[in-house]
Amino acid sequence: MEQPVLPEPGSTERTRLRRIPEKAVTDREVLHAILDAGLVAHVGIVDENGQPYVVPVAYARDGDRILFHGSTGSRLFRRLADGAPTCVTVTLLDGLVLARSAFESSMHYRGAMALGTCTVLMDEQKDDALRRISDHLLPGRWDDIRSPSRKERVSTLVLALPLDEVSVKVSDGMPDDVEEDRDRPVWAGVVPIREVFGAPLPDEAGAAFPVPDYVSGWTR
Amino acid sequence: MEQPVLPEPGSTERTRLRRIPEKAVTDREVLHAILDAGLVAHVGIVDENGQPYVVPVAYARDGDRILFHGSTGSRLFRRLADGAPTCVTVTLLDGLVLARSAFESSMHYRGAMALGTCTVLMDEQKDDALRRISDHLLPGRWDDIRSPSRKERVSTLVLALPLDEVSVKVSDGMPDDVEEDRDRPVWAGVVPIREVFGAPLPDEAGAAFPVPDYVSGWTR
Repeated sequence: MEQPVLPEPGSTERTRLRRIPEKAVTDREVLHAILDAGLVAHVGIVDENGQPYVVPVAYARDGDRILFHGSTGSRLFRRLADGAPTCVTVTLLDGLVLARSAFESSMHYRGAMALGTCTVLMDEQKDDALRRISDHLLPGRWDDIRSPSRKERVSTLVLALPLDEVSVKVSDGMPDDVEEDRDRPVWAGVVPIREVFGAPLPDEAGAAFPVPDYVSGWTR
Repeated sequence: MEQPVLPEPGSTERTRLRRIPEKAVTDREVLHAILDAGLVAHVGIVDENGQPYVVPVAYARDGDRILFHGSTGSRLFRRLADGAPTCVTVTLLDGLVLARSAFESSMHYRGAMALGTCTVLMDEQKDDALRRISDHLLPGRWDDIRSPSRKERVSTLVLALPLDEVSVKVSDGMPDDVEEDRDRPVWAGVVPIREVFGAPLPDEAGAAFPVPDYVSGWTR
């Protein structure tokens, strides 16, 4: 388990995991599956004084890039539009790992991190990206709602980050206790965590219409 | 709803929300509740070349500071130990907001962000912080497991970030559609999301012991 991770396409000196390399996964399908399963990404942006900010965003994967949007009025997002380096991280928490020592106690998770600089999407590409973000978060919804107006599109900054420099970590095993802890007389294992949808709650005018089939079919 | 947010204790020019100020909440109890409900925080760290990284961590709140840990072998965590500025963000996703336009479609969330520099905790403070992080993630577990050995403690960097400069955002309303969309003949409202625990899965040796009451009692 402690073998060094060999460089793979998409892995660089910056994203090659130095800690816990056995949790590093370089399969691009796993990367895509993580990004497709997440709903929120955390974007790192550094301001003009070197202060980092970590901002949650809705996003979508489009092939080998991540699409996300912000307000054109946000000074942080404008920095990304100007080519500031960024990091976009998606973390899916899958469970708690109850080992027999504090040190080995941990979490099950799937995590993807992408480093790079963003491209600002314009015109048809921008419209397409907005639809993709909606389709990722609210599949089936787009055709039922009003498309962005010219004014709304102008106030929205749509960014694309290529998945060129990425790292993927998956922790999904049973507790990895050291030999001398294994006889400890205590329950040990994993408590799974998952997200579930609750019953849809309509607003006042929405209650006059049936819950759409696409909403009833959403699962996590 | 579009009133400017007045400066409050804990709010600075850097954390005063410029976008969507109606979602900003300055109540310290709300801040504490968000941090106490989350399991994973995302930490922003800038490397020596100005590249940001966003790293998921386990954490705990201790009064008005956030405690988290990393490996002493991690070059990124060592930067935090050396006083590099950071941002710690906790985001709780509570639901999907299905408005009648793409622009107003969004998410229910509770989010907290803290900016500052970390203190490295040593000796008794370090031991206390490790227990607090365990108690936050795995309440009741500590007394059943082996405490960190000297070697494990040495390899663990424990950091504290004060909650001095913070912003809190809560989005929990029904869709905020513009007037001309309100007659659209479509269901609209909110689909709640929550995390749930699945049935505990023991490892081979752990199956010989009953699931502890503290685990059976965990709820999200």
